[in-house]
Amino acid sequence: MTYNQLYEQIISKKSFLCVGLDTSTDLIPEHLRDTQYPLFEFNKAIIDATVQYAVAYKPNTAFYEAEGSHGWKQLEMTVAYLRSQYPDILIIADAKRGDIGNTAARYASTFFKSMACDAVTLAPYMGEDSVRPFLEYPDKWAIILALTSNESAEDFETTMCLSSENLVEGDVSMSINIIDQPLYKKIIGRAKKWGSKENTMFVVGATRPEMIADIRKTCPDHFLLVPGVGAQGGTVEEVAKYGLNDHCGLLINSSRSIIYADHGKNFAQAAATVAGTLAATMSKLLDNTKK
Amino acid sequence: MTYNQLYEQIISKKSFLCVGLDTSTDLIPEHLRDTQYPLFEFNKAIIDATVQYAVAYKPNTAFYEAEGSHGWKQLEMTVAYLRSQYPDILIIADAKRGDIGNTAARYASTFFKSMACDAVTLAPYMGEDSVRPFLEYPDKWAIILALTSNESAEDFETTMCLSSENLVEGDVSMSINIIDQPLYKKIIGRAKKWGSKENTMFVVGATRPEMIADIRKTCPDHFLLVPGVGAQGGTVEEVAKYGLNDHCGLLINSSRSIIYADHGKNFAQAAATVAGTLAATMSKLLDNTKK
Repeated sequence: MTYNQLYEQIISKKSFLCVGLDTSTDLIPEHLRDTQYPLFEFNKAIIDATVQYAVAYKPNTAFYEAEGSHGWKQLEMTVAYLRSQYPDILIIADAKRGDIGNTAARYASTFFKSMACDAVTLAPYMGEDSVRPFLEYPDKWAIILALTSNESAEDFETTMCLSSENLVEGDVSMSINIIDQPLYKKIIGRAKKWGSKENTMFVVGATRPEMIADIRKTCPDHFLLVPGVGAQGGTVEEVAKYGLNDHCGLLINSSRSIIYADHGKNFAQAAATVAGTLAATMSKLLDNTKK
Repeated sequence: MTYNQLYEQIISKKSFLCVGLDTSTDLIPEHLRDTQYPLFEFNKAIIDATVQYAVAYKPNTAFYEAEGSHGWKQLEMTVAYLRSQYPDILIIADAKRGDIGNTAARYASTFFKSMACDAVTLAPYMGEDSVRPFLEYPDKWAIILALTSNESAEDFETTMCLSSENLVEGDVSMSINIIDQPLYKKIIGRAKKWGSKENTMFVVGATRPEMIADIRKTCPDHFLLVPGVGAQGGTVEEVAKYGLNDHCGLLINSSRSIIYADHGKNFAQAAATVAGTLAATMSKLLDNTKK
């Protein structure tokens, strides 16, 4: 999916909602647990009920891996269902992968070729060659962790870093170190140059909305994938206030507060109600941006 | 597996070799490709042929995921085979996972409970709460990326960072910032405090042996998992020179140079020859340490 296709879908649906499919047999309604493919049956119902309000779905691979090869098969079935039934939807594999080049190429092939996802979340720690193989697929996206929504994000992500700058004066060149930015901003600054706004997004947690304004100075045009709304405590309004740009530039994800809104037979309708409420808020915010 | 059990196995086998199972249908001998479980058949033959020389096996999850749910099943079969046939072997899931607490708990359950691996490699970017769930399993290991073997490790891992120190003088306390260390050393320093040498190892690439001496100052007692010997260019002697401690403290991994030593029918014997040569070198190095 291209940048423009994503933007067109946002305008058409008046929503920038991403629904996180953190699906687990112990959390879904009881009547689904004895079916052959409980994770898939649950996802299918959630998708059908919420797709009018959502532009993206984000299955978290951890939840499928936790149920072994049968869980992995249901991840594949979910992606295939989305791809065939709703071809305009952005499918994000929330995998947070990151490995040396030859291994990263395997991961890229898994998610982009075997499964036909549009995007994969990636951990940036190992640097450019761990991300590069994902950028080599046209119309696919690398979504790089920048500032995450968890408390321990402050352990390393916000660590103040030095940058080296080369100074040249006549025949003399020297390198000086400048203390200038937290690690997550250094990562955004570098990773921007690996790709473009057409194939790179950054993950920024909704639990730190005031930092989004600052991040927008570093990457005004890129889409940000923002988890942490709902169960983790962030709000759509706060994120939008600092994060919206002239092409929306936001995908706000909610997982548990949508998909586990109700644990009974009406789970899908309950999910639709929560998704609809979020989308209504987003619609107003998008209208305000245009004025 | 406990620290002492691992050390006893190293002494008994006179080896600190870890064999990386980066197994892929397109790279294994042709005669295995048409079997029902080609990755498993290949791994089983490699394990049986090399186990006398190895104390650990490290399947890289990317290679199994790349073949879908059928690949994932063969990863499970490989771990189950190792667990049942060679219970003293350390099994490392090279997964490089890292996610918020509730998701990290799922990953820990996958690798430690469903699959009965002994250890998982983890990306440290998201901080303590992304690692903590793995440390809650007794006799299991978190192996945290520190300084990796790839070229782009210099993008962020070696970035110079500030540390805050609290000074207390009488009734006055103040926090000062000190520029003192590359990011990977900050991570080792912090992560050491989350667990202990009994449940935490660090990944340090063999391609940077001179830095291992420096890392040993920060963590003299921890095991280091060292990839990058063989296809990536590092040597056992150089790594051992800087990395061995009084309980060995090293697991040196080689993947491609062992498992793909030969692509014909004698692939397992060829793998055993390469593994045996590496183990012979390790045996001498261990003998020298005792003198």
